[in-house]
Amino acid sequence: MPKQVDHEARRIQIAEALMRLASRGGLEAVSLRDVAAEAGVSMGAVQHYFKSKDEMLTFAMNHVNKRAEQRIVGQLTSMPTRPEARVVMRTLMLEMLALSDDSRMEYLTHVAFFLRALASPELAEHYREQWPRLEAWVAGELRFAQEAGELPADRNPEREAEALLLIPDGLSVGLLLGQRTSEEAIRSIDYHLDRLFGTYTVD
Amino acid sequence: MPKQVDHEARRIQIAEALMRLASRGGLEAVSLRDVAAEAGVSMGAVQHYFKSKDEMLTFAMNHVNKRAEQRIVGQLTSMPTRPEARVVMRTLMLEMLALSDDSRMEYLTHVAFFLRALASPELAEHYREQWPRLEAWVAGELRFAQEAGELPADRNPEREAEALLLIPDGLSVGLLLGQRTSEEAIRSIDYHLDRLFGTYTVD
Repeated sequence: MPKQVDHEARRIQIAEALMRLASRGGLEAVSLRDVAAEAGVSMGAVQHYFKSKDEMLTFAMNHVNKRAEQRIVGQLTSMPTRPEARVVMRTLMLEMLALSDDSRMEYLTHVAFFLRALASPELAEHYREQWPRLEAWVAGELRFAQEAGELPADRNPEREAEALLLIPDGLSVGLLLGQRTSEEAIRSIDYHLDRLFGTYTVD
Repeated sequence: MPKQVDHEARRIQIAEALMRLASRGGLEAVSLRDVAAEAGVSMGAVQHYFKSKDEMLTFAMNHVNKRAEQRIVGQLTSMPTRPEARVVMRTLMLEMLALSDDSRMEYLTHVAFFLRALASPELAEHYREQWPRLEAWVAGELRFAQEAGELPADRNPEREAEALLLIPDGLSVGLLLGQRTSEEAIRSIDYHLDRLFGTYTVD
């Protein structure tokens, strides 16, 4: 289906232009003309593929979420044996951290989406579906780890899943503003994983 | 010094107008004219009190930080005895959560500041000074709690301080988008404090 593939590729091209614009400080002042120029397509093409800026942004969010998921699944399935829960969580958290150009843009796409969702019930609804799905997946992995004896029995999988996802998000702010180094952020994630899995000991 | 007081009051009035505008979805498209109209003053007055939007935003950040600090210190000093570290941390985290109109606007002022700081080395520098100061204060309180036997000896005060500040920030996103209820967010904070202080037991 070459036509279908082409359609999707063009939508991704436009959405990635929107993400680059969002990553330069927000989407408020960004016009259809700006998106078309950044994507190197005509305004008519942008209008053909998306009915509104919000539709573009929703597509961009789904695109970055899928892209991140593919990177994470790719890493996990390339491991020689089924990884322990701590390794799964570390892979997820490091991919969420704004360390690479891709993950920086993904993080800023989420911020842009969040700000527009404040004034758009439709976008807020979309967010309300995505985030809990990720939290539920992490909580499920932690519950499985508990049954396998990898995670202490007194940890609450839902609450811990929340924190595991919030920590890389928060650390990304400091990374983007140059307040933390990558090494510090990774050390922080390792500390919290160690304390969660009960593998932490004082030096 | 009535003149001095008046000057400060007028700056606060303008900064609060800017915060209200920021809380409606960002500052990119906000003009000097918008700020003046929202504050109910002339454009000349805004220009008299602030040289640029960034100067206004920096003043607004300092203002909301001072305001939050006053609320927290006010609550802590009104307690009949010196509160334990867990109570100090809980007070701080609940004040950071976007539960009230004030704290919602404070949170969104931080987001607006963060987005503009991405493109402004001066704002980024200001951020790099403020956040570590708060982290250092929390880490100091945790170290004191450790010496007093309130916090288990194997906790790393710096790493824990980081997480204690990132968790309410992250929960606020869900609160603002109606994905979490206030009760859920507070329960989450209590769980993490219990696990930090070693007071958590499975039901």
